[in-house]
Amino acid sequence: MGANTFGEIFTVTTCGESHGPALACIIDNCPPGVAIDEALIQRELDRRRPGSTRFGTPRNEADAVRIISGVFEGKTTGTPIGLIIENTSQRSQDYSEIMHSYRPGHADYTYNLKYGIRDYRGGGRASARETAMRVAAGAIAKAVLTQHYGVKIGGCVTAIGTIYTDRFDPAAALESPFNFADNSKTMQAVLTEYIDNLRVSHDSCGAIIEVRAHGVPVGTGSPVFGRLDATLAHAMMSINAVKGVEIGDGFALARKLGSEARDLIDESGFKSNHCGGILGGIATGQEIVVRMAFKPTSSIMTPGQSVDQYGHCIPDLVTKGRHDPCVGIRAVPIAEAMMALTILDAIMLDTAQCHLVPRAQMYHIPV
Amino acid sequence: MGANTFGEIFTVTTCGESHGPALACIIDNCPPGVAIDEALIQRELDRRRPGSTRFGTPRNEADAVRIISGVFEGKTTGTPIGLIIENTSQRSQDYSEIMHSYRPGHADYTYNLKYGIRDYRGGGRASARETAMRVAAGAIAKAVLTQHYGVKIGGCVTAIGTIYTDRFDPAAALESPFNFADNSKTMQAVLTEYIDNLRVSHDSCGAIIEVRAHGVPVGTGSPVFGRLDATLAHAMMSINAVKGVEIGDGFALARKLGSEARDLIDESGFKSNHCGGILGGIATGQEIVVRMAFKPTSSIMTPGQSVDQYGHCIPDLVTKGRHDPCVGIRAVPIAEAMMALTILDAIMLDTAQCHLVPRAQMYHIPV
Amino acid sequence: MGANTFGEIFTVTTCGESHGPALACIIDNCPPGVAIDEALIQRELDRRRPGSTRFGTPRNEADAVRIISGVFEGKTTGTPIGLIIENTSQRSQDYSEIMHSYRPGHADYTYNLKYGIRDYRGGGRASARETAMRVAAGAIAKAVLTQHYGVKIGGCVTAIGTIYTDRFDPAAALESPFNFADNSKTMQAVLTEYIDNLRVSHDSCGAIIEVRAHGVPVGTGSPVFGRLDATLAHAMMSINAVKGVEIGDGFALARKLGSEARDLIDESGFKSNHCGGILGGIATGQEIVVRMAFKPTSSIMTPGQSVDQYGHCIPDLVTKGRHDPCVGIRAVPIAEAMMALTILDAIMLDTAQCHLVPRAQMYHIPV
Amino acid sequence: MGANTFGEIFTVTTCGESHGPALACIIDNCPPGVAIDEALIQRELDRRRPGSTRFGTPRNEADAVRIISGVFEGKTTGTPIGLIIENTSQRSQDYSEIMHSYRPGHADYTYNLKYGIRDYRGGGRASARETAMRVAAGAIAKAVLTQHYGVKIGGCVTAIGTIYTDRFDPAAALESPFNFADNSKTMQAVLTEYIDNLRVSHDSCGAIIEVRAHGVPVGTGSPVFGRLDATLAHAMMSINAVKGVEIGDGFALARKLGSEARDLIDESGFKSNHCGGILGGIATGQEIVVRMAFKPTSSIMTPGQSVDQYGHCIPDLVTKGRHDPCVGIRAVPIAEAMMALTILDAIMLDTAQCHLVPRAQMYHIPV
Repeated sequence: MGANTFGEIFTVTTCGESHGPALACIIDNCPPGVAIDEALIQRELDRRRPGSTRFGTPRNEADAVRIISGVFEGKTTGTPIGLIIENTSQRSQDYSEIMHSYRPGHADYTYNLKYGIRDYRGGGRASARETAMRVAAGAIAKAVLTQHYGVKIGGCVTAIGTIYTDRFDPAAALESPFNFADNSKTMQAVLTEYIDNLRVSHDSCGAIIEVRAHGVPVGTGSPVFGRLDATLAHAMMSINAVKGVEIGDGFALARKLGSEARDLIDESGFKSNHCGGILGGIATGQEIVVRMAFKPTSSIMTPGQSVDQYGHCIPDLVTKGRHDPCVGIRAVPIAEAMMALTILDAIMLDTAQCHLVPRAQMYHIPV
Repeated sequence: MGANTFGEIFTVTTCGESHGPALACIIDNCPPGVAIDEALIQRELDRRRPGSTRFGTPRNEADAVRIISGVFEGKTTGTPIGLIIENTSQRSQDYSEIMHSYRPGHADYTYNLKYGIRDYRGGGRASARETAMRVAAGAIAKAVLTQHYGVKIGGCVTAIGTIYTDRFDPAAALESPFNFADNSKTMQAVLTEYIDNLRVSHDSCGAIIEVRAHGVPVGTGSPVFGRLDATLAHAMMSINAVKGVEIGDGFALARKLGSEARDLIDESGFKSNHCGGILGGIATGQEIVVRMAFKPTSSIMTPGQSVDQYGHCIPDLVTKGRHDPCVGIRAVPIAEAMMALTILDAIMLDTAQCHLVPRAQMYHIPV
Repeated sequence: MGANTFGEIFTVTTCGESHGPALACIIDNCPPGVAIDEALIQRELDRRRPGSTRFGTPRNEADAVRIISGVFEGKTTGTPIGLIIENTSQRSQDYSEIMHSYRPGHADYTYNLKYGIRDYRGGGRASARETAMRVAAGAIAKAVLTQHYGVKIGGCVTAIGTIYTDRFDPAAALESPFNFADNSKTMQAVLTEYIDNLRVSHDSCGAIIEVRAHGVPVGTGSPVFGRLDATLAHAMMSINAVKGVEIGDGFALARKLGSEARDLIDESGFKSNHCGGILGGIATGQEIVVRMAFKPTSSIMTPGQSVDQYGHCIPDLVTKGRHDPCVGIRAVPIAEAMMALTILDAIMLDTAQCHLVPRAQMYHIPV
Repeated sequence: MGANTFGEIFTVTTCGESHGPALACIIDNCPPGVAIDEALIQRELDRRRPGSTRFGTPRNEADAVRIISGVFEGKTTGTPIGLIIENTSQRSQDYSEIMHSYRPGHADYTYNLKYGIRDYRGGGRASARETAMRVAAGAIAKAVLTQHYGVKIGGCVTAIGTIYTDRFDPAAALESPFNFADNSKTMQAVLTEYIDNLRVSHDSCGAIIEVRAHGVPVGTGSPVFGRLDATLAHAMMSINAVKGVEIGDGFALARKLGSEARDLIDESGFKSNHCGGILGGIATGQEIVVRMAFKPTSSIMTPGQSVDQYGHCIPDLVTKGRHDPCVGIRAVPIAEAMMALTILDAIMLDTAQCHLVPRAQMYHIPV
């Protein structure tokens, strides 16, 4: 399976460079009979699209998606779904300076060494623009999850640089220009000042995003290498700039005692969810909770020391182009999309193997 | 691909329950001509095996591995390698009480709901005993990495509960009864007391492990869903009890500025390694750095509230059996094995696609 | 892996219906640095495209391909290659009559039962139109095989209905309006009359195609389930209307003695090639020889008995639309494409596992 | 996925050499709750095992299978099933002469060139002994198919060398020492003489086997690269010595007219089954019919010209060892096993994608 395909059954294969003609994806094994149209996909894309908020990149892309196959009279047919987005706002001349240079913190060097050639314009395939297709495919996965399985997925930014919140509130995040879980006036002011300062100082910052899935059927997931924690970690860590992933209480569990960390159960159900809804790699029926850390955007106007492909030093390389001061801000729909793809795939695998297990007749721990 | 297979090219498929007849694995696509024998595998298994330290479970398993195929006259032949370990120290009667109960923090409930049936003895497939085969397969991957590619992998425990160290010292860890990066007399005393207290209080604790790979060729890894960060996260999060994974500076990057976090480069090479040796999903040639959090062992003698499979409450379920007070302590060779499997697979994929790229003639940033 | 993806490393994923907006494919893990442009792909597409010969369907499609990613300044970059062909000559009204009917010999019934819904226009995804994307992807595989490995692939029709030849002559086939291995004046007259008679009688016929690969490196292929014979059989039998595949002497070997069938070897090399260039699933270095049988087109104007989706009998269903009297005639580039995809994938797998085997220094049996 | 794994969901991974310590396999994603024991598997193995008939090799192997995981109290648990067969009747000294020689018609040369090393004893991994594990895994697939889906699979030899029958009669074949579809006294006499003559003349012959599956649910299978015809072709062509595969009327369809070849339908159902129960890659509900050609055993006592690994000619190489005069005779259970594995996998994939399609309420064409 290629590195540009995700999933075992519900598979998504993507292609496209930042400044190439178009982005596309093909989704295979989508269940038939699901109501899908371009508007449904577009709504998710609009949450991610550049130009939608003044706190993101000024590059303005319509990101208009076209369905080219697999949907007939408003329903999925079970055949592969092709999606395409034409690139319209390329300003490749911004990048001619870095044709031979390696921007620090970027994939320029690693692509060049790996492939011996690279499309340097806007980072080519390494650009976060690639994630548009994840969001588009995720919109379809979400539709299947909602229409067939009653699973709901939502997420929000919970930290931007040093500013963080303990809240988890996807509804608030939808209203927030920062997709932040706390959309209070006070927090808006704090974040606005924080980001504006970053712009002035030609710098950027990292972020933390939390996403949750509600209603995932108990039994979803697999043991060993296919653990749901593992596939979720894979999914999230494959998003540009993500450098850490945790499930449930995550790293905090390392410092806890067993007597604190295990989730006890009484007649009213699970009494806590430290495990993030997954035990032994398999969903407990509780909310599935994933958190991930984004590194700060490496593309900043502050000069940095680097080299070119011939080994010449560049003492003050400046990364031009139109960039987000915090890539995490626009990444909530991407993380949600990856969660939707992962969970739907796990549900389909579980169905394949275990659909004859009489789960409806078995005792379910309340959640 | 089944949930019990890891890898795309260098694939490992495992089977076996804690109290079943045996554990086994099959390794496919191993390069031919690599010197392998049972002793080489046994050395790694002995690092993980139960009964090897008084700070682990008292279950005493020889974990004697037998090679049943794929090796001829001391060398791999390129055909699949079969390995088997017979289980010898099962005390299944310890588990009859939990035949119908769901131990809190365990996979009993999720296995039962998923499959409608479970081998309750010792956790069955959900037991950490499964990881013996990862270590065995990892020993072979390490041999290939060492003999063919000059890659070296090492790891150590860096935190046990609330005790932690900033050191990274695999050599010290090999001497430490806790596999801890700091093996000073003082630290030994601190940890001994900490673990002994846990035993007395019938409790357990979590841990953090760090593993690093040295000498990974620049270009190893892939973009997008196949990013090396993502496959490493998958690998580590698939280990029993792991609930968090980070690459390089990981979660700390969320609080950093772009000007701090990007790794600058001058004539003497990379000036830092915040990215953990991976940019755009592809190895930079620097050390690859992965950290993971283990939750505390859920199997403790302290009674806990739970239910049985009929929904009856059990106010004071006690988990008998022979357990580790801190599962992280014996997990270093497991984490190293998963890293070896992931990196070797990535190298082989890179070879398949890019072996004609004239990398030897290209400028390499010193590391 | 989805049913619309072919290959393990060099993977091709396709989508698109006969009368939908477009066909597309994404090729992953293509080696970088290969010279590719749209003209190179178009040349292969033109060999298959409808409307190119009066002995095929009168549907006239330009089949103009557009590269949307993975190629930069005329070379592959190693990132996924996206290709798209817009459908331009749909006459969907031809199909309204069969909206609820099941054409005999067609996939209408099986698609309807499988998915509960189908795009009936032109057969939807079951149309041979789908194969355009195989040809496009195959053109790229051929370019890699030629530029990097010196492998050449060619094929020809060797039987049309009851008319057959013992020749194998791809050069003659390229000149023949029937892609037939014998392009003599006499044979042209025979075939013209044969096909014209079929048209007049509103009937169709089957065909046999043979394809060969020259220069495949000894060692290409794998044992057991991944045998090169097996993956070639898979590849060919996945082409619409193919119902039989054989390697080398194929079915004729069942009637032969061991003393006749084994390929002896002397100082000048292999003395025969009954095995079709594959022993134990691995290429011998000889020509790889594959033959396949196409069933006659089921879409004929002769009425036939069938049913509709409610179980009502239709005593005289006529399949309208614009169809080929012999689908085999246009299928040579498809078979060549599938062979190219299969062999390139096998070469890449072999490289991944065995690139350090010093084959150049080993004794090669002359071919 | 490695070359030693078969299937997408119901996966089987095998290992083991002819003269190594043991053969093993791991089956993943087996549905839970299926009644399985060693006796059930042994019954199938006994049909294939060497030494069971005087018309096969005199090598006498008990082929005693041991289940090492995935089965608990007589039922599958959903976790991977490990099977092992110890090799007991190795006479490796038979093979010391061919240590450096390449037997004509064998994989000695191709293995050597591919891997640079080979276990020459008994053909190593290239030995048909490998197929024991296919039969064992197939026994489990058959149990699932029977217990869960009502699918029955049977096969028989329909041609041995130049002796053939038009019958298809698995029951007769079970009684026949040749597994032949015609077990009449006359035919027994004919075949006994034919095989005895081959032995006397130190020669061997090919064979044809036909296998059928009854009760495969309509909708099983996929379009395009995952066509059920294609996966069956792959499965069968992966069996040692198979060089041709056909579905339904197969190669005979190339010579037929469309008006003859399409399967018409009336109120009583399908009126023929030229397509072999598959249209558009998807099962029609009719019997699935597959035929395959086995080449004659290359291991014969008649001397043949060959070379050794240094390029020296060997004018009269004799293949010692204990061999079958016709490998097809013992191959019926192997072909049945591969059919069972293929069809079960296809059913599970179909379940994953389409289990919500209300097929039970749809019109089914009688079969």
